[in-house]
Amino acid sequence: MDMQTLFYLVPASGLVALAYAAVTTGWIGKQDAGNDRMKKIGEQIFRGAMAFLAAEYKVLTVFVLLVAGLLSYMYTTIPGGSWMVGVAFLAGALCSGLAGYFGMRVATRANVRTAAAARTGLAPALTVAFRGGAVMGMCVVGLALLGFGVLFNLLIGDMDLFGLLGSGKMMEAQIGLNQVISIMAGFSMGASSIALFARVGGGIYTKAADVGADLVGKVEAGIPEDHFLNPATIADNVGDNVGDVAGMGADLFESYIGSILGAMILGAVASQGWMGAVAIPLLIAAAGVVISVLMTYVVRTKEGGNPQVALDIGAFGAAALMLPISYFIIDFAVNEAGGTIALGVGSNVLNVGTVDLMVAMVSGLVAGVAIGIITGYYCSKGKRPVNSIVDQSKTGPATNIIAGIGIGFESTALPIVLIAIAIFAADAYAGLYGVALAALGMLSTTGIQLAVDAYGPISDNAGGIAEMSGLPPQVRERTDNLDAVGNTTAAIGKGFAIASAALAALSLFAAYRGLALQGQDLILTEPKVLIGLLLGGMLPFLFSAMAMRAVGDAAMDMITEVRRQFRDIPVLREALTIVAKAEEEERALTAEEDAQVIAAGEKTEVERCVAISTQASIRRMIQPGLLAMICPVVVGFWSAEALGGLLAGTLVSGVMLAIFMSNAGGAWDNAKKQVEDQKKDLGEGNSGKGSERHKAAVIGDTVGDPFKDTAGPSLNILIKLMTIVAVVIAPLLAAGN
Amino acid sequence: MDMQTLFYLVPASGLVALAYAAVTTGWIGKQDAGNDRMKKIGEQIFRGAMAFLAAEYKVLTVFVLLVAGLLSYMYTTIPGGSWMVGVAFLAGALCSGLAGYFGMRVATRANVRTAAAARTGLAPALTVAFRGGAVMGMCVVGLALLGFGVLFNLLIGDMDLFGLLGSGKMMEAQIGLNQVISIMAGFSMGASSIALFARVGGGIYTKAADVGADLVGKVEAGIPEDHFLNPATIADNVGDNVGDVAGMGADLFESYIGSILGAMILGAVASQGWMGAVAIPLLIAAAGVVISVLMTYVVRTKEGGNPQVALDIGAFGAAALMLPISYFIIDFAVNEAGGTIALGVGSNVLNVGTVDLMVAMVSGLVAGVAIGIITGYYCSKGKRPVNSIVDQSKTGPATNIIAGIGIGFESTALPIVLIAIAIFAADAYAGLYGVALAALGMLSTTGIQLAVDAYGPISDNAGGIAEMSGLPPQVRERTDNLDAVGNTTAAIGKGFAIASAALAALSLFAAYRGLALQGQDLILTEPKVLIGLLLGGMLPFLFSAMAMRAVGDAAMDMITEVRRQFRDIPVLREALTIVAKAEEEERALTAEEDAQVIAAGEKTEVERCVAISTQASIRRMIQPGLLAMICPVVVGFWSAEALGGLLAGTLVSGVMLAIFMSNAGGAWDNAKKQVEDQKKDLGEGNSGKGSERHKAAVIGDTVGDPFKDTAGPSLNILIKLMTIVAVVIAPLLAAGN
Repeated sequence: MDMQTLFYLVPASGLVALAYAAVTTGWIGKQDAGNDRMKKIGEQIFRGAMAFLAAEYKVLTVFVLLVAGLLSYMYTTIPGGSWMVGVAFLAGALCSGLAGYFGMRVATRANVRTAAAARTGLAPALTVAFRGGAVMGMCVVGLALLGFGVLFNLLIGDMDLFGLLGSGKMMEAQIGLNQVISIMAGFSMGASSIALFARVGGGIYTKAADVGADLVGKVEAGIPEDHFLNPATIADNVGDNVGDVAGMGADLFESYIGSILGAMILGAVASQGWMGAVAIPLLIAAAGVVISVLMTYVVRTKEGGNPQVALDIGAFGAAALMLPISYFIIDFAVNEAGGTIALGVGSNVLNVGTVDLMVAMVSGLVAGVAIGIITGYYCSKGKRPVNSIVDQSKTGPATNIIAGIGIGFESTALPIVLIAIAIFAADAYAGLYGVALAALGMLSTTGIQLAVDAYGPISDNAGGIAEMSGLPPQVRERTDNLDAVGNTTAAIGKGFAIASAALAALSLFAAYRGLALQGQDLILTEPKVLIGLLLGGMLPFLFSAMAMRAVGDAAMDMITEVRRQFRDIPVLREALTIVAKAEEEERALTAEEDAQVIAAGEKTEVERCVAISTQASIRRMIQPGLLAMICPVVVGFWSAEALGGLLAGTLVSGVMLAIFMSNAGGAWDNAKKQVEDQKKDLGEGNSGKGSERHKAAVIGDTVGDPFKDTAGPSLNILIKLMTIVAVVIAPLLAAGN
Repeated sequence: MDMQTLFYLVPASGLVALAYAAVTTGWIGKQDAGNDRMKKIGEQIFRGAMAFLAAEYKVLTVFVLLVAGLLSYMYTTIPGGSWMVGVAFLAGALCSGLAGYFGMRVATRANVRTAAAARTGLAPALTVAFRGGAVMGMCVVGLALLGFGVLFNLLIGDMDLFGLLGSGKMMEAQIGLNQVISIMAGFSMGASSIALFARVGGGIYTKAADVGADLVGKVEAGIPEDHFLNPATIADNVGDNVGDVAGMGADLFESYIGSILGAMILGAVASQGWMGAVAIPLLIAAAGVVISVLMTYVVRTKEGGNPQVALDIGAFGAAALMLPISYFIIDFAVNEAGGTIALGVGSNVLNVGTVDLMVAMVSGLVAGVAIGIITGYYCSKGKRPVNSIVDQSKTGPATNIIAGIGIGFESTALPIVLIAIAIFAADAYAGLYGVALAALGMLSTTGIQLAVDAYGPISDNAGGIAEMSGLPPQVRERTDNLDAVGNTTAAIGKGFAIASAALAALSLFAAYRGLALQGQDLILTEPKVLIGLLLGGMLPFLFSAMAMRAVGDAAMDMITEVRRQFRDIPVLREALTIVAKAEEEERALTAEEDAQVIAAGEKTEVERCVAISTQASIRRMIQPGLLAMICPVVVGFWSAEALGGLLAGTLVSGVMLAIFMSNAGGAWDNAKKQVEDQKKDLGEGNSGKGSERHKAAVIGDTVGDPFKDTAGPSLNILIKLMTIVAVVIAPLLAAGN
């Protein structure tokens, strides 16, 4: 098979994933959606999620069209520039947006069906939840490879790249390849912008609703969490889908495309236009998709079986299978070129073979898994970090917070050392192209990885629906069980996300230097570079401040609205008193009370809470999003060197803050859960649910919420979005010099 | 006057400052130390502070001797290396240690005398407190210039630098000058190491005692703050001296020497050995010391006058006077060399005159003042940031913490932009030498600046002594008044500290590149540089985690000890009940109760608390201190380029964390005070002392304590210490290549 034909496999594998998604969506639709009450709740969550997406996409359409027009216009002003960059940007944004839409559509259908299935047992519930997540995963990788692949094949066909290479016109081929890469960077930038807005908007939505619902419902009114009398509960559930499913999907879409692109660019540059360097990342991605689809069928468990084992076999199995397949692909490409490839120029040439490239790729994989294990250590119950927070909670919230921040700070150390080792190893064996392959190695099985990630919030949501519709307690137990087992795999996923973001940003950063400064070096002691470095280091802090303030303000709006409903709707007020009293007396409601409370639940104005979260998150996602888009452009047009510094600065402090915030948040969360697990009579009596220690731990958990679900995960995207913006504007900067 | 003679002015000006310090120390000793109870408390604080210093210096002596020996040995192994580097290191450490010793000795004498003077009025109390601070300030700059100046004059005499220059042996002179600079860097490193240990140790000491005293005394036993029944109160007061006086003194000693050295090195390198470039920073520093001494006599107020005005005239007046004097010095040096100086080599030569150098220097001064104003804005009552924390405290500690962290993050933005502008301006007018002069501009009046800074904790301590010895309330009011007015000037001082640290580190960083890589550039996209950048960015997080954990652990030890005394000393237990009951009933003690309580106060085992803080802080300062010393050495011997990246990474994330932590801490502190100022009947009744909002604000303040007093200020030193270590080992690395 020649290489040109092989490239068609890329969009074809995307179609395979989409076909899987379509079939599975149909299957999920046919599952039982439970009783009327469940159906109604499910419908409310579905409509809330769709309302958010509609509002978000309305704003983003305007934004995307403007940027696309601007890019096309600017590119036509430079020699050899193509207006296709704007079109590619549009296509990237569209594919990412569609992936979010389809994924969330099915996730909000799957949650209520998971709850329904959990009435009969654990095994059917696992299948529904996992397949719901798998649709999300396959939509993401399918649309990514379809869009990216079709665009790529069109471009190389249009420019007759293979013809040029065949007739030995290396110079023309090189120019053509550079142009293809610029346009593909536009696609990646489109996906990244959507990702940033989706992550920030979703993060604000979910935490505003969560904090608002908890503070008024649980703390002030004294009713249980997720109770249907609380009008913010539906918004909270919508938020889980919006933030954890759609936000994460867009995030990984962006990482996936970004790491493929980074490897393509660096490969093309380092090897002076060898097509194999471009083919390797694309073919590995295509193979990863097919493997992911196949492995979804392995994830199933028997009744009484351990769902953890099922998920592990799926995710780790896929990663393990990818090793021989990657070897085969790399070896094929390298042998086409005669067995060794010269990477680099002049005295810095590195002659690499199949094994060198494999080592580079595996070093990323190993670092990603190790970081995941460390992430798990810092956030798990019973381990030293969480234990120390539990200890320090004894003397109140202040010591709990100090301990959590300390743990979060400390948790940056080992992951950074591991990333450093991975860079060192990948670079030693295959230069910067190796670093890019290391990032790709972690993301080749994104399809199934994302399925496992999205399965968590679906199970969590199913639990909420079970609670709200008053299903028997064992249903909730089953969904909790499902939710809990996803944690380890999710921690590994987090490790992959952070490590791959750092490595992908590094490779795109090197690509930027090549494109914008054309041969000139980026010298760290130059004042302009240092200015960029300092400004770039500051941006993640400012960005996080904006995201956190948005959560605070939006939560305040939500609190005011829930308080208003509790005060102004008389039947609701009465029902609240009944439920709170029963809670206090630790008894179940009588049949009569139950009927009254259910009737009152009909009167809650759920839509208003949904509207508040939607509006607040859409409005407040704009400022941080624009910060990320505009800063590199402004700094870059002042000085391309300063922009280089800016990217490095953002990378450094962004990675640290991202690790700090997500690990501190995770540790606080599990410290609270660990306190809740304690027996009340333990030690000095300051333990367990309801104790002073528990109150302190709850405060830590609340502080951690915007850390781990809003600001933290958005920072990964910030780093990469700024870098890809720089790569896209690099030819404009180079032309302007 | 020829230049050689002028250089003798440097140690001479140091002697002037020390003479002032000696005379003023005598004057303070003659002031009234109050009644017997005050004298006893004063004595306890004095002895506690001296015990800490003794313990600290014992450990540091071993450490300093080891490092000095190692440096001397290593330097003799390279061609042209001098064992004097180790001796200079020893001298730097000794001078810094002596400054801390004398400064703290007099500060702990001045505090009780300030309390005594406050019995008669505000004006005499101001004079005592300010002069106490001035002794500290003059000891620091005096010993710095004396040590640095004597060493420098000895070295240039020994090498006959002026003879070489006179006979046109430029090459030999250049080599000699480089050697002088290496040795002076050793002096600076000695001062920096002492500074880091003093800051970290002092920071741990003060916060462990503070948190421990408050939690058991105020929260658990219900007695007022600073009550003499609380055995940790003396330790708390000792801590204020150890942390805020001695720690800050060592910190500024280090900044001061570092910025002079940075300017000397860059000047010598950029101008290819022009002695004027070395003379300018030294002479400006010498002039600044004399101006500082003179301006201390201006700081006085009439009874009923505004002490703020007196302090402002002193500090700002000195800075204003320095402008024409600096112009004169620069103009003299530039004219000696013919009116313009060529800085740089090859195509990058910049011809600069007097005005260019002045602009560079002033740009630093302007940025420092502006950053101070912004710092003031973020930490002041009634301004938007603190108001927002007060608002968010309404819904509890979690929202208070989220708001404070958000404000702290946000507060990094403007200072960084200002530092960037200062670098840009200084570089445009006078290259990297200009950047070094910008740092120096801020620190030329360190003498009086430090007097104002140290005056704050002396007044604060005087208030504590007044409280503990049962002086009438108006005495406490006066000392509070004194303490409060120092805040604005202290904020400016903080601005100077951060901005000058960043600029000085930048110039030393450039100096490192010149020394270690000798002509080779530090290329940002090189994998080794990137690895260094990431590791360096992580170090401030790890360092802060260590410092914060040390505070937490030491506070726990203190809490356990205070609880033990409250439980096991029967008369103390009874007295506590009496005081707490009176507090609750909001009445004064009867004469009989008072006598019983005072008798019980005699039984507290103050020394044990002092010993706990001392031991904990000495033990726990070692780990973060070694981290800062060892990392650059290990990374540097692996790769000199990676060490360059490491320094840049530490600079970027260190500056951000330092600004974040000190501003968040300051904002939380004043948010608490603002809540305390509120009337109880304001709004929804959730305001003022004792309200839920107040409890939330107190928690924020406690979280902020280790931020602003332990980790935050230590980070400034961390950044510079790592850079100076790199400069000192640079010739070793270059020789090893």
